[in-house]
Amino acid sequence: MDKPNQLPEILSLSVSAQSRLFTIEQVELKFSNGVERQYERMRSGGHGAVMVVPLLDEKTMLLIREYACGTHTYELGFVKGLIDPGETPEQAANRELQEEIGYGASKFTKLKSLAMAPTYFGSTMHIFIAEELYEQRLEGDEPEPLEVVQWPLAGIDNLMVQQDFNDARCVAALLMAQTRLAI
Amino acid sequence: MDKPNQLPEILSLSVSAQSRLFTIEQVELKFSNGVERQYERMRSGGHGAVMVVPLLDEKTMLLIREYACGTHTYELGFVKGLIDPGETPEQAANRELQEEIGYGASKFTKLKSLAMAPTYFGSTMHIFIAEELYEQRLEGDEPEPLEVVQWPLAGIDNLMVQQDFNDARCVAALLMAQTRLAI
Repeated sequence: MDKPNQLPEILSLSVSAQSRLFTIEQVELKFSNGVERQYERMRSGGHGAVMVVPLLDEKTMLLIREYACGTHTYELGFVKGLIDPGETPEQAANRELQEEIGYGASKFTKLKSLAMAPTYFGSTMHIFIAEELYEQRLEGDEPEPLEVVQWPLAGIDNLMVQQDFNDARCVAALLMAQTRLAI
Repeated sequence: MDKPNQLPEILSLSVSAQSRLFTIEQVELKFSNGVERQYERMRSGGHGAVMVVPLLDEKTMLLIREYACGTHTYELGFVKGLIDPGETPEQAANRELQEEIGYGASKFTKLKSLAMAPTYFGSTMHIFIAEELYEQRLEGDEPEPLEVVQWPLAGIDNLMVQQDFNDARCVAALLMAQTRLAI
């Protein structure tokens, strides 16, 4: 399992479609065995994103229920957001907490950095546990107040079967937190 | 936590950019509090996707190392692929196994269906454990043979810290399999 793979050569790179938020690139590749392929991917801009599992106390985590446009449903999940220019991931995590649930945190523990779907996207999301919360609210850009949901750490199995708890990144964050906290 | 949310009204829906693989939609929304917003999302086509955690025996799972264009890296992860028209998720899982690692499986256990990033995408990925493997190969459309990696189930902690094991869906699948198999 230690054989190094030789990356394919990028023969050309061009923008094949562009909208307000998204830029789609066409990539012409030549693999090390000589095979050539045309792929498409989303251009990754920005500074990455964060997701936070906040612990209100030793027995309770905080989730939000938020409208998701991709699925046109309300989804249960963790606080998340993009890192602004000049912010560290921890600073972004603390800002998003204050904007989305009205708490800051004094202690952040990094769990892992995750890719969303590396076949098509280059973006990275840093996952944190936040502890030692304090009440502090920052104005966010949400179109409506987010519903904050207290969930018992003892009820992780129940959370996993909720019909509106679906985001792969939230499932990964939850189960990594469970491992880390030895629940 | 049982308050039903009233979905925003979709005022209009239009295609804002389109490439060979991707269609980006612009969505005009009116939230139940009267706030209007313009969002963008990827149109979800197709029949969803599958990801499979295959167990070679009671102590060993199989991963693949595959080129990921979005990150331009080789990534360690599980067998995955799109569901073809007319296939059940289990049939797609069995076909992808045969194409990517040269095994079929007699037993599939569904773990959960995951969304990728429901803010922007509507697609669903069904996650399975595959057991009772048998050697059988189908021709896939990969540009180069995939590297198949045997990983001990006792080494999940080690897998989690590998620098090329990053996909949120793979992390979720691994930790759900760990819970299900009571490792």
